[in-house]
Amino acid sequence: MSRPRIAALGGGTGLSALLRGMKRAPVDITAVVTVADDGGSSGRLRRELGVLPPGDIRNCLVALADDESLMGRLFQHRFADGDLSGHPFGNLFLAALSEVTGSFDHAVRECSRVLKIRGEVLPSTLAQIRLWAERVDGEVVSGETRIAGGTGPCRRVWLDPKPPAHPPAVEAVRRADLVLLGPGSLFTSVLPHLAIPELAQAVAETDALRVYVCNVMTQPGETDDYTVGDHLDAIQAHIGHQLFDYVIVNDGEIPEQVHQMYAEKGSKAVSVDMEEMTRRGYKVIADTLVLFRTYLRHDASKLSLHIYQLVTDWMQRKG
Amino acid sequence: MSRPRIAALGGGTGLSALLRGMKRAPVDITAVVTVADDGGSSGRLRRELGVLPPGDIRNCLVALADDESLMGRLFQHRFADGDLSGHPFGNLFLAALSEVTGSFDHAVRECSRVLKIRGEVLPSTLAQIRLWAERVDGEVVSGETRIAGGTGPCRRVWLDPKPPAHPPAVEAVRRADLVLLGPGSLFTSVLPHLAIPELAQAVAETDALRVYVCNVMTQPGETDDYTVGDHLDAIQAHIGHQLFDYVIVNDGEIPEQVHQMYAEKGSKAVSVDMEEMTRRGYKVIADTLVLFRTYLRHDASKLSLHIYQLVTDWMQRKG
Repeated sequence: MSRPRIAALGGGTGLSALLRGMKRAPVDITAVVTVADDGGSSGRLRRELGVLPPGDIRNCLVALADDESLMGRLFQHRFADGDLSGHPFGNLFLAALSEVTGSFDHAVRECSRVLKIRGEVLPSTLAQIRLWAERVDGEVVSGETRIAGGTGPCRRVWLDPKPPAHPPAVEAVRRADLVLLGPGSLFTSVLPHLAIPELAQAVAETDALRVYVCNVMTQPGETDDYTVGDHLDAIQAHIGHQLFDYVIVNDGEIPEQVHQMYAEKGSKAVSVDMEEMTRRGYKVIADTLVLFRTYLRHDASKLSLHIYQLVTDWMQRKG
Repeated sequence: MSRPRIAALGGGTGLSALLRGMKRAPVDITAVVTVADDGGSSGRLRRELGVLPPGDIRNCLVALADDESLMGRLFQHRFADGDLSGHPFGNLFLAALSEVTGSFDHAVRECSRVLKIRGEVLPSTLAQIRLWAERVDGEVVSGETRIAGGTGPCRRVWLDPKPPAHPPAVEAVRRADLVLLGPGSLFTSVLPHLAIPELAQAVAETDALRVYVCNVMTQPGETDDYTVGDHLDAIQAHIGHQLFDYVIVNDGEIPEQVHQMYAEKGSKAVSVDMEEMTRRGYKVIADTLVLFRTYLRHDASKLSLHIYQLVTDWMQRKG
């Protein structure tokens, strides 16, 4: 059996957490990363230098680098004082390389080499994109920061104008044995991929196993009160039909004090409507997938193991 | 004959220009670089982050890197806009690595590795130093920017307090077959090395051939009206005795329009008092050593060839 090829579409911390686990598995992993970020250091670099927002890409690159590497630590190092305050060094590295080479794509490849990453990281598009969202209450907002920072759940997101996909990202989806969406912010990390027509088409048309990893907690301003089924409905609404073969959800218990901590921020556990999903034809993998440090995060090792088993089983069945 | 070892003490553009030539010669070159800079990007990083000024070190690192390397171009790339405006990326690289590793020395070594340099670059000291100068008219000023930016020639410079030398820099001088001072700003790049007691002692005590490459033009605020002999006198006054076996000077003609361009900035050709130097026992190598592009610069290839011939002849004589 050849080495399984996995294309993981996402952005932000969800995808990078997953990659940290997946890089230990004997798979070829390609991370396709959204470039919709307009806040923080990424937003400043985007506005001041006109480069693509480097933050999510940086996190994914570092996640696929050796955990102990000096370059990885350097990339995550934030300047604490002065004009540079708040910029992680890796963002500046990507921005400077973009300017020198005239190509964000080239910059990402060069950083991949410097960090000696296992796998590949690709931006979903090389265009400067602007994300728009309509909330359930009808409000229309633009910009990732304002979408995620607003009030009330979203209904849909889109890009205007529609950007061309980065061809190698489309190719990675087309060649994959397993296409993964999530974990991550539904409307600002996952769905922006499906707002790029060629990428949405590749995801819709692939023969690969399609897997969704649902977030454990709702996100205020994006998925307030969403159940797992609501997450799946939103994705289905964006792509026109039911997409996933498997849905991976957490059914591990979340300690009461963690519930309270999240409740203060308007977030609660995503409720798992198991019967409803089975009725709709999804295969569901439910397991204790959470670790708690200062915040809840996916147990990357366990999640990766499930994904690895899914893809190898599927490749064996396929022959 | 073993490979000649050359220790080149300087700073600023003079030393890096020389290194660009020397890296092509079959020698082991160690650049010992002053860290007195307090202006521009280096000054900002020094004040805001408390790191050693990286600019001169960066220039020397890049000079010893492959001319065509992407990393070399990246290090020299200056951000044009926003908060980062004016910072060459390599300065940020050295600053971030200093913070991550807690050691400027470690940062320089890591950058040497990333840039795959031929040779070695060492700061003269790891202490934050402050340079003081007394002008010929008696004025006392501190800080490289104010020294070089003021009016009238200097008489002497010193560091207060006297810093410890960086031990590998002392070792490089002690092991060298040829110790080179200059080209470069006499009072802000060359003499600060001799203001570090252990380094001055190593230069004074070495059995190596000692060579001085004199600047071609005087520098306003530092060496107004200085002859070659005045440069040598200033060095002798700082170290207590005559230091050099050889002095390399330019005797190539400087075009009239270049003279005029420099005259407008208060700079003129350093006059070469050949008889006086011979009388004092210096061996003088005079050649056409200048190239003119937008400003005069040493012909690094020709200069390097002279230095290479000096060191190989001397090693053969020594046996």
